[in-house]
Amino acid sequence: MIYQREFQLQTSGHRQMHDLTGEVAGIVSESRVRYGQVHVFNVGSTGAIGTIEFEPGLQEDLPAMLDKLFPPSRDYGHEQAWHDGNGHSHLQATTLGPSLTVPIKEGKLVLGPWQQIFHLECDIKPRRRTIMVTAVGE
Amino acid sequence: MIYQREFQLQTSGHRQMHDLTGEVAGIVSESRVRYGQVHVFNVGSTGAIGTIEFEPGLQEDLPAMLDKLFPPSRDYGHEQAWHDGNGHSHLQATTLGPSLTVPIKEGKLVLGPWQQIFHLECDIKPRRRTIMVTAVGE
Amino acid sequence: MIYQREFQLQTSGHRQMHDLTGEVAGIVSESRVRYGQVHVFNVGSTGAIGTIEFEPGLQEDLPAMLDKLFPPSRDYGHEQAWHDGNGHSHLQATTLGPSLTVPIKEGKLVLGPWQQIFHLECDIKPRRRTIMVTAVGE
Repeated sequence: MIYQREFQLQTSGHRQMHDLTGEVAGIVSESRVRYGQVHVFNVGSTGAIGTIEFEPGLQEDLPAMLDKLFPPSRDYGHEQAWHDGNGHSHLQATTLGPSLTVPIKEGKLVLGPWQQIFHLECDIKPRRRTIMVTAVGE
Repeated sequence: MIYQREFQLQTSGHRQMHDLTGEVAGIVSESRVRYGQVHVFNVGSTGAIGTIEFEPGLQEDLPAMLDKLFPPSRDYGHEQAWHDGNGHSHLQATTLGPSLTVPIKEGKLVLGPWQQIFHLECDIKPRRRTIMVTAVGE
Repeated sequence: MIYQREFQLQTSGHRQMHDLTGEVAGIVSESRVRYGQVHVFNVGSTGAIGTIEFEPGLQEDLPAMLDKLFPPSRDYGHEQAWHDGNGHSHLQATTLGPSLTVPIKEGKLVLGPWQQIFHLECDIKPRRRTIMVTAVGE
C-alpha cells in the first residue's frame, strides 16, 4: 500500500527550523498504514530534513555549527552561477540531506520521546517549501 | 510484503561503534524478501547509523573527526535544556543521520565486501538502544 | 510493486561528481511505478550519493569543503589497515552517506528544478561503481 501527500511550508530564511513531526504523523494516520515506513522529502536543493531533539538550544546550535563548518561567503565557485550568496546553503543542505525515512508500527511513527522530525531552511531568504510524504506498508 | 523486527543494542557510551550487518542480514533472511530494500533506524536522537568499512582504524577515526568538527563543550545552547554535556552528541548524530536503507537482491543485502552497517553511539554514557528494522519487497 | 536494476559508473577518481538524474529517471520510467519512491545506492564504502544543484561551481565547492573538513592525510588510523592513503575518502563518504530516496509521483521523480541526484567519488583512484536502483510503489 502506498499513500502520498505533499504539504507546503513557509520559511523565514536562513537558520530557521520547523518541527514536522505532527504533520507527518497526521499523514501516516490518514494513510492507514499499520506497519511500514514513511519517507519525508524536501523538494529543492537548499533545505534539509532529519531528526533532532527539537528544543530551543539545538535550534540555535545546529545552524550555528553548520555556518562554522560551511561559512557564508562570496568565495564559493557557486557564486559564479548565480551571484546570490547562497553557496554555503547548498553545501549545508547537501551534507545534512534532503530526506528522512521513519518506521511505522501500529499506525504510529517510531521515534524516541526526544526525537522529532525537523526541517532546516539553509537558504538565505524566505522560501515556500513543498514537503512530499510517502508512506509504504500494510 | 512488509517485515518488521526490532532488536536491542547495549552501548558503552561515547565513540563506541557496533557492526550491525549480521543482525540486519539475519532479519532480511527471516523476512523472506527476495527483492526490495531494508531500512535500519536508531530510535533516539543521539545515535547514528550508516555504512563504513568496519575496521579498527576507522572505528577510531570517525568519532575522533566528529569530535573535532562538533567538539564536546558546555557552551552549546542545548546545555540550557538539560545541563548534561551532550550537546555535541546531538549535533554529531543529526549530521550522520539516524538511519540507512540498503537494497535486497536474491534475499541478501547488497553491500560491497568492505562496506558494513554501523551504529555509532554519540551519547556520553552507556545507552540501551532500540534498532528498528523494516524490510519492504517481494 | 518492486523494480530493481543496477548500472555501472566509471569514475576518474577523487573529487569527481556525476549527475545520475537521467539514468535514475529512465529506470523509474521502465519500472512503471506511478506513485512511490526510488532508492539509489552506491555499492562500496568510498562513494556518496545525494542531491545538489549540479552546476560547475558546486562540483568544485563540495569536494573542496569535504577535503577541508576531512583532509587527505597519512595520519588516520585507517592507514594501518591498508597503507593506501584513502582514510579521508571513507570519512567523507560515510558522512554524506551512500544512498538517497526520492519520491515518485505520476511516474516521475519529484525533484526541484535545480535539484539533481549526484554521485561523488571520494576515493583517490578511478573506480568502477555499481549503482543499485530499487523502485517501490504502485
